[in-house]
Amino acid sequence: MRSDPFKPAQRVAGQKQDVWSIVNEAAAASPVQPIINMGQGFFGYNPPQFVLDAAKEALDKVDCNQYSPTKGRPRLKKAIAAAYSPFFGREINPETEVTITTGANEGMLSAFMGFLEQDDEVIVFEPFFDQYISNIEMPGGKVVYVPMHPPSTGAAKTSSAAEWSINMDELKKAITPKTRMIVLNSPHNPIGKVFSREELQAIGDLCVEHNIIILSDEVYDRLYYVPFTRIATLSPEIAKLTLTVGSGGKNFYATGWRVGWLIGPDHLIKYVSAAHTRICYSSVSPLQEATAIGFEQADKHGFWDESKKEMKGKMDKFNKIWDELGLPYSDPEGGYFVLVNMAKVKVPEDYDFPPHVAERPKDFKLSWFLIKEIGVAAIPPTEFFTPENAHIVEDYLRFAVCKNDDVLEQAHERLRGLKKYIQR
Amino acid sequence: MRSDPFKPAQRVAGQKQDVWSIVNEAAAASPVQPIINMGQGFFGYNPPQFVLDAAKEALDKVDCNQYSPTKGRPRLKKAIAAAYSPFFGREINPETEVTITTGANEGMLSAFMGFLEQDDEVIVFEPFFDQYISNIEMPGGKVVYVPMHPPSTGAAKTSSAAEWSINMDELKKAITPKTRMIVLNSPHNPIGKVFSREELQAIGDLCVEHNIIILSDEVYDRLYYVPFTRIATLSPEIAKLTLTVGSGGKNFYATGWRVGWLIGPDHLIKYVSAAHTRICYSSVSPLQEATAIGFEQADKHGFWDESKKEMKGKMDKFNKIWDELGLPYSDPEGGYFVLVNMAKVKVPEDYDFPPHVAERPKDFKLSWFLIKEIGVAAIPPTEFFTPENAHIVEDYLRFAVCKNDDVLEQAHERLRGLKKYIQR
Repeated sequence: MRSDPFKPAQRVAGQKQDVWSIVNEAAAASPVQPIINMGQGFFGYNPPQFVLDAAKEALDKVDCNQYSPTKGRPRLKKAIAAAYSPFFGREINPETEVTITTGANEGMLSAFMGFLEQDDEVIVFEPFFDQYISNIEMPGGKVVYVPMHPPSTGAAKTSSAAEWSINMDELKKAITPKTRMIVLNSPHNPIGKVFSREELQAIGDLCVEHNIIILSDEVYDRLYYVPFTRIATLSPEIAKLTLTVGSGGKNFYATGWRVGWLIGPDHLIKYVSAAHTRICYSSVSPLQEATAIGFEQADKHGFWDESKKEMKGKMDKFNKIWDELGLPYSDPEGGYFVLVNMAKVKVPEDYDFPPHVAERPKDFKLSWFLIKEIGVAAIPPTEFFTPENAHIVEDYLRFAVCKNDDVLEQAHERLRGLKKYIQR
Repeated sequence: MRSDPFKPAQRVAGQKQDVWSIVNEAAAASPVQPIINMGQGFFGYNPPQFVLDAAKEALDKVDCNQYSPTKGRPRLKKAIAAAYSPFFGREINPETEVTITTGANEGMLSAFMGFLEQDDEVIVFEPFFDQYISNIEMPGGKVVYVPMHPPSTGAAKTSSAAEWSINMDELKKAITPKTRMIVLNSPHNPIGKVFSREELQAIGDLCVEHNIIILSDEVYDRLYYVPFTRIATLSPEIAKLTLTVGSGGKNFYATGWRVGWLIGPDHLIKYVSAAHTRICYSSVSPLQEATAIGFEQADKHGFWDESKKEMKGKMDKFNKIWDELGLPYSDPEGGYFVLVNMAKVKVPEDYDFPPHVAERPKDFKLSWFLIKEIGVAAIPPTEFFTPENAHIVEDYLRFAVCKNDDVLEQAHERLRGLKKYIQR
């Protein structure tokens, strides 16, 4: 008999308070209300009307309200294959090379569940999207971290996110006989870097040499402001090892819809599908249909061009405040996050932080201070690093600009309140 | 270096063709078209209009299209707590005793992920819903099977589904020091049995004695035609060990919406939530909102009474055909499935089955024969048994009656074609 029937499994036992709840709780309790929340990357506006209309029409159809096939609705798989075949330079087979998942997140979990045995290793760059870690550890995988390095002048002047770099020797050293997969993310969250063709070629060649499966998280794939390369397109050998991850939520401003997908060769996709079936059985049916129609009609509505132009506009507009305040940032090449270097912001030495913030790195304190004193929420990025490498970003904060223009303007107003804390 | 980078993880490697795809493929290829599909338990009609309207309204709200909190939208947790508190005879705390999942399926996986370590044992009754098995095995759990026994007269005459029984000695023998959880299902799929208070009390007492967590799958909890007892209500000691599983898809005719929930004490729910966060992060936001409104307005629309009356009507109407044909069945006490005993149906001895059907038990052949010759699809229930106990149901087929009345009438017409194969 179990003496403690309520003891949780090891995989969920470590319940350190996560960054999202720390920031959200602080935001809810701030004296400045309503807070301007530029923390989590949800959109401050709705999906485009033609996609919303498609969702409403789907809700009137009997089959769209019932179980979809486990691999996804045929119309969505077909729409995705049609939309991505030109980017991949080959015909993607919707039946065998696309599988629909419950958001990109569960899609990545399905990939890890499909290929990782106990103690298999997965290489992840720091900073990382925090869900990668638990998704790898759930099937018993071990994360091997390789840091990305900021430009050495990051505290002194604004520079392109491109200047964050990978040291290929560090990457090579991270490879062992147990390395099974590597996770890439481009455009990158939180850095905003779009990996160059040369960087991807070097990483891809290494994966071919060592037979490592590449899980390429490209959920911000419609938001790039410099040329964007998909690693799966670099060579047939690399393509054979690559699973590309996409997100309807990111593409169509609907992070709550939970429609994602993986594209890749049949010999990889079939096991992702098998794992997905065992995890969620099938994914949300009416919103898959709406996402399909989104892809079918996006070009007609000029949506992709508009989407990119609009987000780049928000990014440039918002970042003017840093120039005004003299705070350097990593100018993003893609996505909707910007990392701002706050080394010059001097929080009063006697400022009173609660214990769960005081024990964290400097960026947690900066985030807390901004919420309480300025009324703007941002994410401390050390959460996306191992403790060992957290120092790399302890001066930074991450802001999400996928908000309405009036919100960005209010943010400007409030952030001007930082002036008195900035050391020249 | 990996010699075979494409080798899948053991947990997804065994890809035996599942019953759903065998039946669906046979249905698609049948000479009788369109087939009447009474196989999978999807509804042949839409959710009620007030729930559809709620979904459409939710789609117009910015926050309903973005990430919901990982534990679920507050409105839905509150609506569920309000709806279930009267059944549980106590106030359910929406913040700590309810968690929203991506369908009941991922909810049950989250419970197993939350509590099972490698080689922990979970007791499952046969027949079982097939997803239980992979959901238990994913976190490394081991399934221990206990058969339910049909009435000995099952081949001779129609009797209540209540007469399927559990042998308590067999259940006791299945308990070992490694037993961590037990899965219950009432109303039961596929049997249609509603477990009696006495049966549940006996099982519950045993679980209290051995500190076994009870995962009670009650997704058909609004469709019972005899008094229905929830095991969590039997005693505080049992409640302390019980997680109750519910489904918006089953409650509101929307199996494709993927909104489910677990209700239970805080010390269990918090680890289910933690696992769910690591699996799907959050669940579909606008359809959570619609489900919340469904609960809020159901009584006003008389929906629950109507829903039960309508399904019982379909069940009785459909089962008349078996009386007419002289085929005995288990008269369901709940849910929308009926098990029919086909021992009297004689498939011609020289009938030509494809190899993947010929190698399966008799019910697979019956299912194939009905699809091809009669034009009605039903599920062979040996799929829900271990090979060892499959013989118990090899004469049965499972029919889902959650279809429009005209479909049930057409099914009658076609099933009359069985007459010439029935041995009197």
